[in-house]
Amino acid sequence: MQALFFDGRTPRLTDRPPPEPADGMAIVRVELAGVCNTDLEIARGYMDFEGILGHEFVGLVEEGPASWHGARVVGEINFACGRCEACAAGLGRHCAARRVMGILAADGAFAERVAVPVANLHRVPDGVTSECAVFAEPLAAAFEILEQVPVEADQHCVVLGDGKLGLLVAQVLADAGAKVLAVGRHADKLALLSGREIETCPVDDFRAESAQADLVVEATGSGAGLELALAATRPRGTVILKSTVAERPAVDLAPVVIHEIQVLGSRCGPFEPALAALRDDRIDVTSLVTDTYPLSRAPAALEATATPGTLKLLLTC
Amino acid sequence: MQALFFDGRTPRLTDRPPPEPADGMAIVRVELAGVCNTDLEIARGYMDFEGILGHEFVGLVEEGPASWHGARVVGEINFACGRCEACAAGLGRHCAARRVMGILAADGAFAERVAVPVANLHRVPDGVTSECAVFAEPLAAAFEILEQVPVEADQHCVVLGDGKLGLLVAQVLADAGAKVLAVGRHADKLALLSGREIETCPVDDFRAESAQADLVVEATGSGAGLELALAATRPRGTVILKSTVAERPAVDLAPVVIHEIQVLGSRCGPFEPALAALRDDRIDVTSLVTDTYPLSRAPAALEATATPGTLKLLLTC
Repeated sequence: MQALFFDGRTPRLTDRPPPEPADGMAIVRVELAGVCNTDLEIARGYMDFEGILGHEFVGLVEEGPASWHGARVVGEINFACGRCEACAAGLGRHCAARRVMGILAADGAFAERVAVPVANLHRVPDGVTSECAVFAEPLAAAFEILEQVPVEADQHCVVLGDGKLGLLVAQVLADAGAKVLAVGRHADKLALLSGREIETCPVDDFRAESAQADLVVEATGSGAGLELALAATRPRGTVILKSTVAERPAVDLAPVVIHEIQVLGSRCGPFEPALAALRDDRIDVTSLVTDTYPLSRAPAALEATATPGTLKLLLTC
Repeated sequence: MQALFFDGRTPRLTDRPPPEPADGMAIVRVELAGVCNTDLEIARGYMDFEGILGHEFVGLVEEGPASWHGARVVGEINFACGRCEACAAGLGRHCAARRVMGILAADGAFAERVAVPVANLHRVPDGVTSECAVFAEPLAAAFEILEQVPVEADQHCVVLGDGKLGLLVAQVLADAGAKVLAVGRHADKLALLSGREIETCPVDDFRAESAQADLVVEATGSGAGLELALAATRPRGTVILKSTVAERPAVDLAPVVIHEIQVLGSRCGPFEPALAALRDDRIDVTSLVTDTYPLSRAPAALEATATPGTLKLLLTC
């Protein structure tokens, strides 16, 4: 089958053997896949991954338990061992022996077919288009914040970064009733949030020291984001750290101590609330789609994702 | 009166005017004061402070409300405005308009007398010697951790740093029932924890990656401590950050995100549990006293505090 394979140096469109059926696994015929910035980081060497890239997908179950045959599904990306302490505690996303689709020791979804543990599958609700459903994974990462910290009505939140994740996070927090200020570099991207009771502000005009936010989400994708986030947080407030970067940024940690700020890392999240929000049309994802490419042009899609101004690129597989 | 005055360049023993009585303030005749590493940092320019140094003290109330006359007291160091939103919420320690004794816009306790808001005073329980009571402030900072995170019986805690604060924190966590491993550079300092059901380990033998601690307290006083703390923390565990340093260390933040670690800054704490622990003899502080100097030799005490191997130096004022 056709797949975007990364050999540790260059992602290339290659003919790969299709995944074999195995116990507890389903084979999904990929319909659409989404390109994520993490794919770019991996293609630059992050995680030392070798294999088929891609971890955002929607497709139809071709093989696996009969009850799943033909189901339109999305899938969680952490393949937990199911036997360790973390798994027993319901923390499969933190299983130390986990494989991660397209990221760690498991082939990804930039391919005609992908193998996914049945336990990781979620049916796409009727009425949710595949173009929306393919956002389930990044939207779940945004919903993870609500699992980690209480977000109350009228809580003052700042979202730093107007990339894909920042735009989803801003919407999720506003949907939860918070007063959201989205800060970014791109007027056109921030404009996508208009009409959603979300304030926006160009980063150059943002006066972090006056923000005194209860909750700041750092989704800039840059190591420099944390210091800005700390400056915008009130004493005893919370910074949610979403960016994973390869660099080791220099950080002034004194504000963390002096203001007793909570810095909380946040990664993958729960699919249920994400799918429910898509079903109820509470989150706009379609305006985040910059373009759709055929799988055969996956290398070009990866390249285009690195271009400023691009939001989500989808692959028809 | 005699006082250790910092003019922004050099701490010098100087003759200073004694503090004037004012509304809501008490004048305390200082008996003993403790030298803290923060005093050193301030003498190196941290906080741009000018004034009398020192914020750990025990003494007798000389002037103020009649009910306090002659009382042996310790005092909280944050002088809150009492009128702002933070103060109304009971967060006077985070009042944006606060002055801080010997640190920010308020004269300190390396002097014969010091002015302290009456609201900040705590009576020293009978039976607690002044040599113990002078530890109330740093011990309160250790107890702050218990206010911030639940510490449960048999929780696996690592304390990084065998300085004064690290040794107090290790004891407070053990006193709360946690399983504590104290990691440091000095065998003689770690030995002070022996007989208290606290494991100790030289930092060179510490295998952070195997620790998988629920809670790690970073009290190394070095910017490099955070990365080691992160490595020692289990997924979804907590790092308490105690060190305030002037440097901006380079930090690999990826583990924070990947393992969804909570990093929590922690500063000043509640005096009540600290005084109660001293009263009940649950925490050993006297073995932390390296030496006692007369106030007239305060500059030498400051210098000696910077010497490796020194723990707490006290000043008789």
